[in-house]
Amino acid sequence: MRTRGPSIFTAMHLTSLALIFSLSLLCSAQRFVRFISTDNQEYFGDAILPAHSFDAAHSTKARVIDGDILGDFKITNQVKPIKKLLSPLPNERIRTVRCVGLNYVAHIDESNMTIPGWPILFYKPFTSLNTPSDPIPVTAGFQTQGNFTSSMDWETELVIVIKKRAFNISDDEALDHVLGYTVGHDVSHRGWQIDRGGLPQPQFSMGKGADGWAPWGPAIVSTNIIPDPQVLNIWTKVNGVTKQNATTADMIFGVKHLVSFFSMGTTLLPGDVIFTGTPSGTNLGKEVKEYLQNGDVVEVGLENVGTCTNQIKYT
Amino acid sequence: MRTRGPSIFTAMHLTSLALIFSLSLLCSAQRFVRFISTDNQEYFGDAILPAHSFDAAHSTKARVIDGDILGDFKITNQVKPIKKLLSPLPNERIRTVRCVGLNYVAHIDESNMTIPGWPILFYKPFTSLNTPSDPIPVTAGFQTQGNFTSSMDWETELVIVIKKRAFNISDDEALDHVLGYTVGHDVSHRGWQIDRGGLPQPQFSMGKGADGWAPWGPAIVSTNIIPDPQVLNIWTKVNGVTKQNATTADMIFGVKHLVSFFSMGTTLLPGDVIFTGTPSGTNLGKEVKEYLQNGDVVEVGLENVGTCTNQIKYT
Repeated sequence: MRTRGPSIFTAMHLTSLALIFSLSLLCSAQRFVRFISTDNQEYFGDAILPAHSFDAAHSTKARVIDGDILGDFKITNQVKPIKKLLSPLPNERIRTVRCVGLNYVAHIDESNMTIPGWPILFYKPFTSLNTPSDPIPVTAGFQTQGNFTSSMDWETELVIVIKKRAFNISDDEALDHVLGYTVGHDVSHRGWQIDRGGLPQPQFSMGKGADGWAPWGPAIVSTNIIPDPQVLNIWTKVNGVTKQNATTADMIFGVKHLVSFFSMGTTLLPGDVIFTGTPSGTNLGKEVKEYLQNGDVVEVGLENVGTCTNQIKYT
Repeated sequence: MRTRGPSIFTAMHLTSLALIFSLSLLCSAQRFVRFISTDNQEYFGDAILPAHSFDAAHSTKARVIDGDILGDFKITNQVKPIKKLLSPLPNERIRTVRCVGLNYVAHIDESNMTIPGWPILFYKPFTSLNTPSDPIPVTAGFQTQGNFTSSMDWETELVIVIKKRAFNISDDEALDHVLGYTVGHDVSHRGWQIDRGGLPQPQFSMGKGADGWAPWGPAIVSTNIIPDPQVLNIWTKVNGVTKQNATTADMIFGVKHLVSFFSMGTTLLPGDVIFTGTPSGTNLGKEVKEYLQNGDVVEVGLENVGTCTNQIKYT
């Protein structure tokens, strides 16, 4: 008996540990990332954060995810080193990129606009999506040409990722359709967005849709980790200097209402993303403009989510 | 010799005929359609037009196309009956739907706008695409609610279909990237487009993007058949009464420039479509509004291309 005792205990102990470990994985932190590992293969993973950081941009390893993060998937025990973080989903998986204009009061003030009665929707093409670290290309048409000054500006935004089809849903149902949140950069050329957008009713599209003008990621942080997305600090740094610094508590239309509102007569699909608008601190509010120049480095950040850091590159 | 003569002649004759027939197919009319045949299978085809008609909507049969109309394909000799015409490409093949605002002078006048210096770009989500014959759904949010009147309006447009990747191309290169043209209906709810689009800068998106609000087809007519898209009559009929009647010659920005302009720093992909704006005759110009009601039937038509006929359906 004395010889069996410890052995049974050990087996039970190990089984319990395995069970606890499995449960902890199932319920554990999900910071969905996509990355190239040191074997040069691409993986989906659950980022393992470094100590004292919420930013997967600094993760050096991740648990490999089997399956489809928009459908059935499993977080495995296999840990892989991260060589390069990509956007959390490949561009081809993103069907529609919705964006919200004028969703923070202070940004509306700096834009000389009035508070809208309904969310202002516009789109970016999926081809504008970019990784959290690659350059933001600025081609000739967006550079200074004669009297037309290049006016590249930053806009940091909380981004919602849809996981489940939504059509005419209510605010209360909205979060059931959300996979999680990440941070995105709604890169904006004010000249093409406003001056050349078609007065007196400029459409924002030409000033926001060029290739690579929507860095996002690196992690989609699940609704388990962020049950309330309306309490997060959000910021922008240009060459290390803070330019935007606000909280998502100041959104006029919050995450739940945006998802429900955009589903009005309209199917939202798994992989659709919604950029939820930027706070104040853009060049729209500056007397002396500090538009982004070739070589400038922009960090966009969201508390408990992470950062994207991309360089402006004239091409 | 007399016995061999006719036989050799016949063989050569048949070979020549086959060659001529093959060449004629290669160079022949290409009115790309997608359809359900009487065997309930889906096919791509080259529509065989009825006598004295350019409208594939009236075609009862088509030559089956093998392959991908956006890549390599072959028009076969197999003729199939058409049971139902679908949109020319399935929604899933369309990556981005671009639209042009204010591209006909008379429509700008009726909208109380000024002629823009540059093409006005906006987007519809791919989920708004509809077949040339299915109902246009109007869900509760777009119906009259209290003091907010439903204001469903028609907009008939020439639609460009991209066949080859384009990035920073010139006007002269544009047509090399175009598969052909079809007709589309940019269904528009004026209340959500303008009044609730976010004054003083309304974005058109909420008023134009609901599911099924972009019927298009039935045929993509190749650039072989339409070398010049700027000479085509374009019209709308509501319950058989003509509402719009104009010519694509009146476009401010023509097909070549739109394709080149939208490729500025931006990748256009095979299967992208561009709705090129509507002429005058919409409700924007009417003192007494005749907005579309439940049950109304709208025909949108383009010369040498065809028609879509869809019924407004409250759902």
